[in-house]
Amino acid sequence: MTGTARARVPATSALREIQAPVAEGLDDVVAEMKRIVTHQLPLIEQVSGHLLQMRGKMFRPTLTLLASETTSSPEPRAVTVAAVVELMHLASLVHDDSVDHSALRRGLPTVNSLFSHQVSVIMGDFLYSRALEALVGLADLDLMRVLTAVSTQLTVGEMRQLAAVEALAFSESDYEALIHAKTASLLSASCETGAMCGASQHREALRRYGERLGMAFQVADDMLDYTGSSDETGKPSGLDLREQKVTLPLILALPRLAPAGRATVERLFASETPSDGQIEEVITLIANAGGIDGARQRGEEYARQAEEALDGLPDTPARAALADAILYVMDRRS
Amino acid sequence: MTGTARARVPATSALREIQAPVAEGLDDVVAEMKRIVTHQLPLIEQVSGHLLQMRGKMFRPTLTLLASETTSSPEPRAVTVAAVVELMHLASLVHDDSVDHSALRRGLPTVNSLFSHQVSVIMGDFLYSRALEALVGLADLDLMRVLTAVSTQLTVGEMRQLAAVEALAFSESDYEALIHAKTASLLSASCETGAMCGASQHREALRRYGERLGMAFQVADDMLDYTGSSDETGKPSGLDLREQKVTLPLILALPRLAPAGRATVERLFASETPSDGQIEEVITLIANAGGIDGARQRGEEYARQAEEALDGLPDTPARAALADAILYVMDRRS
Repeated sequence: MTGTARARVPATSALREIQAPVAEGLDDVVAEMKRIVTHQLPLIEQVSGHLLQMRGKMFRPTLTLLASETTSSPEPRAVTVAAVVELMHLASLVHDDSVDHSALRRGLPTVNSLFSHQVSVIMGDFLYSRALEALVGLADLDLMRVLTAVSTQLTVGEMRQLAAVEALAFSESDYEALIHAKTASLLSASCETGAMCGASQHREALRRYGERLGMAFQVADDMLDYTGSSDETGKPSGLDLREQKVTLPLILALPRLAPAGRATVERLFASETPSDGQIEEVITLIANAGGIDGARQRGEEYARQAEEALDGLPDTPARAALADAILYVMDRRS
Repeated sequence: MTGTARARVPATSALREIQAPVAEGLDDVVAEMKRIVTHQLPLIEQVSGHLLQMRGKMFRPTLTLLASETTSSPEPRAVTVAAVVELMHLASLVHDDSVDHSALRRGLPTVNSLFSHQVSVIMGDFLYSRALEALVGLADLDLMRVLTAVSTQLTVGEMRQLAAVEALAFSESDYEALIHAKTASLLSASCETGAMCGASQHREALRRYGERLGMAFQVADDMLDYTGSSDETGKPSGLDLREQKVTLPLILALPRLAPAGRATVERLFASETPSDGQIEEVITLIANAGGIDGARQRGEEYARQAEEALDGLPDTPARAALADAILYVMDRRS
């Protein structure tokens, strides 16, 4: 979270450390995911196989398992819950990629590009539906309540994004509502449902931790566009600006811009395909107006709130890993 | 089901008669659907409003309510179950239209054509997710088990359709598996879940009734393309053939065609855009080979099985309406 923490370890090794207390459990989660999405229809097997192969960092299942292990009595069903959470995440990614016509995800072709748009819509439905069947199999209404509510929030988040037509009118509270729905809700549920599998006395604390972690996660993600450096150019990618998506650095900078600066931003958002020069200029304007620093502070505040939420938890390796997960989220470079 | 039955009443008035015993309940279902999909985000309200306005015949909720009223103790929650069933149906239609790039549904523009492809993918997710939240609210694991399993079947049905690349290799059992998944499964669940709300002693009979009714429904639907007459041309539309979809009449006719006839069918399926003449010729070939009569017999067999399933039910207006629903399904002209 600070300069020192940022320099400490490369993000990937940090993730491996965070996952160490639940490494075996994560293997079980992968096996459980396979079991849930297996189907005799060859096309479904092909797409499922591709999706499980492109599986990402398993960050959400990691949180679920860690949350369930914050006391000494984790329940084995946490593995199924973690698999359900990851499948819900995967289903939403498949639909997002289809909606955005994305060609790559995690370095592999997306379902819509490798198969078809049709297959990606229906496979997203299949994954979600199978995840729910597995959840129903656990016969716990409370778990179902939490996870079906989250799945609505994920769709509302996407709708908020689609509804934001007047980009520059997108306010700070619009942004908060958006990142809460599209990111924080599922990270929060990952932790809350983990707690419900063996650490229910810490359910509210872990729900809150996951929610704040999720807000920090998305702010950090949105900042990467402004602060990261692309391998090719050594400059920030500015991808969100190129796609005319408004995130926190721009929202915080906008009211502080002089009329000329504001006009430059408006020209970028009015042009069909903004040029590299335009993007670079606007990034500089935003940085000089304190938009990037402001967003970093906001992210650090969320991170602090996540840390505070862990205060009442017993001193276990799982708790330590959850605290490290905050640093990991703040440190991510990709 | 017979020539006499076909002539008896126009299909729409028959539907009104079938719905008479549950007319008030159906109004409650509409109100319940509105309650479930209401959301503060204006874009969601717009799309929901459009979807509720284009709402169709409410055939599935009709079955649910009738099933719950086959004994004297229907439960009020049948209204919520019926709303959930119809919303699941609506969600799958929204995704199907998006996948098929359809422009019209029930005489109104589809969500994908009126809003966008993106909005239709995400709104389908929203509808399904909200329906499940409402279902979880009923706190009945058994209902959840039935309806999440059906939702998987609906997606598998769509995947089967997408997977059928070698159209003319599509067998009778492929066809049965397809129509079971895409149509019979939800009609079956509509009846089964209705039974679970007040007539649980008839749950298996009503499940079976709905399943057989669904098979008959889809066969009748697929035959319309071959037997219906379009308003403009007075001839069968042959729409499935135009889209190179293989349904029962063609499947039954294929093995009976002489080599020359088979070659004509293969030419149609090999051509990018089949001509009206080609379609007319193939319809005649199929009719002459007994494909249409064979499909009609198969439909009548399903209808008989549906009727038999009602045998053990008490003699109530609801049971009579369910029996009429079989005639309605066999009689449909659109």
